Amino acid sequence: MYVTRLLTRRAALSGMLAIASCGASSHAVRAQSDPLPSWNDGAAKKSITAFVARVTTPGGNEFVPPAERIATFDNDGCLWAEQPAYFQLLFAIDRVKALAPQHPEWKTEQPYKAILDGDMHALAASGEKGIAEIVMATHAGMTTEEFAKIVRDWTATAQHPRFKRPYTELVYKPMLELLAYLRASGFKTYIVSGGGVEFVRTFAERVYGIPPEQVVGSTIVTQFEMKDGKPLLLREPKLDFIDDKAGKPVAINKFIGRRPILAFGNSDGDHQMLLWTADGSGARFMGLVHHTDAEREYAYDRNSSFGRLDKALDDANAKDWTVVDMKRDWRQIFP
Amino acid sequence: MYVTRLLTRRAALSGMLAIASCGASSHAVRAQSDPLPSWNDGAAKKSITAFVARVTTPGGNEFVPPAERIATFDNDGCLWAEQPAYFQLLFAIDRVKALAPQHPEWKTEQPYKAILDGDMHALAASGEKGIAEIVMATHAGMTTEEFAKIVRDWTATAQHPRFKRPYTELVYKPMLELLAYLRASGFKTYIVSGGGVEFVRTFAERVYGIPPEQVVGSTIVTQFEMKDGKPLLLREPKLDFIDDKAGKPVAINKFIGRRPILAFGNSDGDHQMLLWTADGSGARFMGLVHHTDAEREYAYDRNSSFGRLDKALDDANAKDWTVVDMKRDWRQIFP
Repeated sequence: MYVTRLLTRRAALSGMLAIASCGASSHAVRAQSDPLPSWNDGAAKKSITAFVARVTTPGGNEFVPPAERIATFDNDGCLWAEQPAYFQLLFAIDRVKALAPQHPEWKTEQPYKAILDGDMHALAASGEKGIAEIVMATHAGMTTEEFAKIVRDWTATAQHPRFKRPYTELVYKPMLELLAYLRASGFKTYIVSGGGVEFVRTFAERVYGIPPEQVVGSTIVTQFEMKDGKPLLLREPKLDFIDDKAGKPVAINKFIGRRPILAFGNSDGDHQMLLWTADGSGARFMGLVHHTDAEREYAYDRNSSFGRLDKALDDANAKDWTVVDMKRDWRQIFP
Repeated sequence: MYVTRLLTRRAALSGMLAIASCGASSHAVRAQSDPLPSWNDGAAKKSITAFVARVTTPGGNEFVPPAERIATFDNDGCLWAEQPAYFQLLFAIDRVKALAPQHPEWKTEQPYKAILDGDMHALAASGEKGIAEIVMATHAGMTTEEFAKIVRDWTATAQHPRFKRPYTELVYKPMLELLAYLRASGFKTYIVSGGGVEFVRTFAERVYGIPPEQVVGSTIVTQFEMKDGKPLLLREPKLDFIDDKAGKPVAINKFIGRRPILAFGNSDGDHQMLLWTADGSGARFMGLVHHTDAEREYAYDRNSSFGRLDKALDDANAKDWTVVDMKRDWRQIFP
C-alpha cells in the first residue's frame, strides 16, 4: 500500500512538473506524466487540473494551506457503480437469501418476499423504509468485528450480475486517478456516503487508498457491552443516522469539522453537500458524475430508482459546476 | 504551526536517536534530546518510551504499521484542567450570566438559579441532566459558525478563577510533549472528549496541534437549512450523542473505525475506552492521569463531582495500566 502510494505520488508530482514545464515535451512524455490518463482531454479534465493548480500554487491569491484541502466524494455511482441497485443493497439481498431458512415468515412479508421472488421493482417500490428494514435485518445483531468479516467474505466471492466481476473491481479508474492526484497535491480525500460506514470501510483503504477514519457514512446504533469480562460493540437493529441529502453537510461538519473545498457526487443525494461546499469562501470545486454510457456502464439520471440525478443537475448547469459526461470524458471506466 | 511541528518532530527524532545511541552521551546532550523533558524519570515515563520503542521498531515482533498507530486522549483533566468545574461548563455559566437579562425566569428556575447565585454545589447536584439543560440553553439556537465565534471570543478573554490565566493556557505541558512525541513516532493523535466537539475544535489545532477532524466529542442535533438561498447548519437544543463512558468506544468505532493502541484518560468516564483499547491484539498502552497535586494543580479522585476516578483506578492498579502521579511524575504542569 505504502509503496503504491509513494509511486502514485511520485508519478503525479512528475506529472505536475511536466505540466508546469514548457510545451516542447514530446507526446510520449506528456502521456507518461499525465496525472489523469483515463480522462479524455476536455472541459471536465481541464476544470479539475486548473482548480488544483489555483489552490496549490504558493503565493497565488487562491492558495489554500494543505490542512484545509478537504475533498469529499460520494461513493455509490461516484467512485463505484450503483446499478442495477446499490451494491450494499445487493449484499443485503444476498444476506436475506442466506438467512431465509431461519425466517419462514419472509416468504409472505414485504420487502423480504420481493427479494426471495427476485422482484427488484417491488423492492425499489418499498422505498427508503423498505430498504432500511432489509438493512436492519441483515446488518444488525452481531458485533462490529463479526459484521466486517461477513462483508469481507461477501466482497471476496460475490459477482456483479452483468459484469461478472467482484463489486470492488467496478470502481471508476478515472476517479481512482483523481483521488491519487488530489492526495499527491496535498488534499485529504474523504468518502461521504449514504452507504453504511462499516460496510464501506471494509474495502475503502485497499480499493481507494482511503483509510477508515476518512470514511463518513450512514450508521446504525451500536452499543458497548462487557460480556464475560470482554468488551464488545454490538450492532443494534436501529437506525442512527442517514448520511444522505441534508445529512451529508451535517455529517461533514460532525466528522470532519471543516468545509470541503472540493466535492464530487452524482445524484440528488449529493446536492446539499455540493451547495455547502460551494458556499465557502475562496476557490471551490463542485463536480457531478453523469451516467451517460449505457454501453460501457449505465445511462440514467432523472428517472432512476437508484442514484436519481435531477435537481442537482439543474443546479450544476445553472451554476457552472463541473458535470462529467461519462461517455465523453472517460477514456476507460473500470480498471 | 507547521514550523513548530517540524521543529518538534526534529527534536523528538533526534531524541530517539540519542536514546538509541550508547550511554556515553553527556547529561547536557541527554537533557536536550529527551522527548519528554517535563516528565520526571520514573516508571510512568519509562512505560511510555518503552511502549513507543516496542511498536515502532521495524522488524520487532510488536511492530505496528504507522496507519494503525491510533492514540486517543480524553481532554478534560487529561490534556487540560477540569477544576473547579469542566471549562466548558464554566463557559456555559458565563453564557447564562450574559443571556440572563433576556430570561427573567432563570432567577427562580434550577439549574439557572444555582448559576446566578454562584452556587456550584447546587449546580453539581443537578447532575448530568442539569448540565445538559445548561448546555442546550447556551450552545444551541445559532449556526455552527456563530457558535464557534462565541467560543473563540470567550476563550480569548475569560480567565480561570484560581490561576488567573486563559483556560487554553491551563493545558498540561507533559501531555503536549507526549502528543508531539507520539506524532513524531508516526502516531495519529485524537481527542475523544465528553466535551462538545465544536467547543473543543475551536482551540485543539492551535493548542494541541490536533486538527478538527481528529477531535471526537459530544454532539447536539444540527440541521441543514437553505435560508434565502444560503446553506446553513443550525444547532438545535437537542442532544445527539454523549461521548462519555460507554459512548467513547462507540464513538471511536464510528469516527475512527480503528481500535486505538494507546489511550489516555483520567476518570471513570474513560474506563470503557481503556477497556476497549486494552482488549485489542498486540502491544497496548493504557494510561491514567491521577490528580495528586493540590499545590500546583488539584488533588482529587474517588469523591470528585468533576472527573471522578474510582473504578478505572482500581482496574488500572489490577491490570498494571500506567497511572501518572501528577505530583511525582510531572516536573512542570502548565507551559
